[in-house]
Amino acid sequence: LPVNIKCLFEGEEEIGSPNLKPFIARQRRALACDAVVMSDTRMLGIDRPAITYALRGSLSLELEVVGSPHDLHSGNYGGALHNPLQALCEIISKLHDRDGRVLIPKFYDRVRRWDAAEREYMARVGPKDAEILRNAGVARGWGEVGYTLYERTTIRPAVNVTGLTGGHQGTGGKSIVPARASAKIDIRLVPDQEPEEIERLFRAHICRLTPSTARSFIHTFFRTSPALVNRRHPAMRAAFAAYRGGFGVPPVFVRSGGSIPVVNEFQEQLGAPTILMGFALPDDRIHAPNEKFHLPNFFKGIETCICFLREVASRPELRRAREQAELQTIAG
Amino acid sequence: LPVNIKCLFEGEEEIGSPNLKPFIARQRRALACDAVVMSDTRMLGIDRPAITYALRGSLSLELEVVGSPHDLHSGNYGGALHNPLQALCEIISKLHDRDGRVLIPKFYDRVRRWDAAEREYMARVGPKDAEILRNAGVARGWGEVGYTLYERTTIRPAVNVTGLTGGHQGTGGKSIVPARASAKIDIRLVPDQEPEEIERLFRAHICRLTPSTARSFIHTFFRTSPALVNRRHPAMRAAFAAYRGGFGVPPVFVRSGGSIPVVNEFQEQLGAPTILMGFALPDDRIHAPNEKFHLPNFFKGIETCICFLREVASRPELRRAREQAELQTIAG
Repeated sequence: LPVNIKCLFEGEEEIGSPNLKPFIARQRRALACDAVVMSDTRMLGIDRPAITYALRGSLSLELEVVGSPHDLHSGNYGGALHNPLQALCEIISKLHDRDGRVLIPKFYDRVRRWDAAEREYMARVGPKDAEILRNAGVARGWGEVGYTLYERTTIRPAVNVTGLTGGHQGTGGKSIVPARASAKIDIRLVPDQEPEEIERLFRAHICRLTPSTARSFIHTFFRTSPALVNRRHPAMRAAFAAYRGGFGVPPVFVRSGGSIPVVNEFQEQLGAPTILMGFALPDDRIHAPNEKFHLPNFFKGIETCICFLREVASRPELRRAREQAELQTIAG
Repeated sequence: LPVNIKCLFEGEEEIGSPNLKPFIARQRRALACDAVVMSDTRMLGIDRPAITYALRGSLSLELEVVGSPHDLHSGNYGGALHNPLQALCEIISKLHDRDGRVLIPKFYDRVRRWDAAEREYMARVGPKDAEILRNAGVARGWGEVGYTLYERTTIRPAVNVTGLTGGHQGTGGKSIVPARASAKIDIRLVPDQEPEEIERLFRAHICRLTPSTARSFIHTFFRTSPALVNRRHPAMRAAFAAYRGGFGVPPVFVRSGGSIPVVNEFQEQLGAPTILMGFALPDDRIHAPNEKFHLPNFFKGIETCICFLREVASRPELRRAREQAELQTIAG
């Protein structure tokens, strides 16, 4: 190989990489590198390769609303007690206004404003509203007025309910006022929001929204900061060139609304940018049942990675990779 | 036995007695009787026996809100689409106003107003607010202003969410915009509300509340009309006397917020009132895990039933029971 490569595998990305983060800190010397390459992002479509240069952060929480110590008969108590399922719905309904804006006070205070040039670039190369809706399989968009759907999912933060649980969930009905209900909440963050601060604001807001007739509890699963990758980094230029070799067309630079916890860790601990060379397609049903991968992209992706190694080796700025490869060759 | 007895068993009461209702209609002759006795109600406490003379009706439904055809990645789509879980919460949050009143238009139009004498009787013999809260294990009541908790659960209708389901329900978080969410709804009805009409009003209201960014569907499980039993019926008098024998104290007449589907069927098909001689206690955790039955009430209940048969036999107004018993004696 023309450059030295270190492989790092983990299986906990979806739960916030709780073990990989301290591992990277402990193994800083062993992991030292010029750039990290990760394939966990999407292209815009078949033959429309893309390199991701921005990720949203993520704050993963569970909100629980509790009423009575155990379920009660809904005939005997329905109408006299604040049903926790209803109270939970009432709280959740107050997280957004009618225009899709998040109602948590100070939530937008640190959200970075992007200049016209950046938004124009996004509008030019990014997915159009109609394309996003088609990929999602829905007829109408929703969300913060004044932003395209691509912008709403990348440069704007979002509060999303990912799960609801409470009371009877089997077939038919059951006559109960359930004792408790809970919602899984996924807050997507953008520069320069900080997960810890947003968590504090969320907790304070839920506290205010919780009526005196119910109790609420919040459990935090994980926090991930938003991430940006310098598009002008030599390894990014190498990746740009590599896609031409793999796909026959140049890629575009796109932002992703997703989150990858260790990207900031690599930057902070190793001083290395993460080159997000992902080969998924928008209709791959990511995180859904029957997730798929388009096989031609598997082979084009391999080709792109081979080209990338060649490109990296040809760039004198990426010294460590070259030097280590040379050392290894000497040692070999 | 001093009277003739016919026993009828069913195991479908909780799903609206779908088979017992047509069975009663088909077997009218075989089931002919003066009164029906059923033990499916509560006392007010240990040594505080009660005969139930009113039941609320019940309308059991499921409301489903649908967004995309399958789950989507919440990073990639969160903020650009109307999350069905959020949309469901928003719809449910609009079913009540801040004072606990149901916001379905015309919902209260047919609700019967009870005179001061009836409400005064209820206040005198029925459970107090503090007692209801203690039995429920909650600190504060909730609901329609202007009514006691006992009234809110008996002479006033209620809309109750008995189940919430959507998206991820396991441990931790999952980064999805779920495709669909649903709520089980239990509407308790009072005289003179009709389940079919309330179902129409509910469906029309949900239709109005459903935003253009989501679709909603309603499935009806069953409908039960509210029921009233004449407190002056000879069989009720017999029951009243019987409790003295079984418990040593006279019972009070109470309303229940629960529903028993066949009570109206017995009245309409057989012309017979249902004497609701139940022996459950308020802390029996009815419909909840670890449901119990207070064993002394089992034996006092048996004693009460023996007394009831003797009392019924002594009342010449209850002719059919007596005549049939006599016929049987002759035949025997």
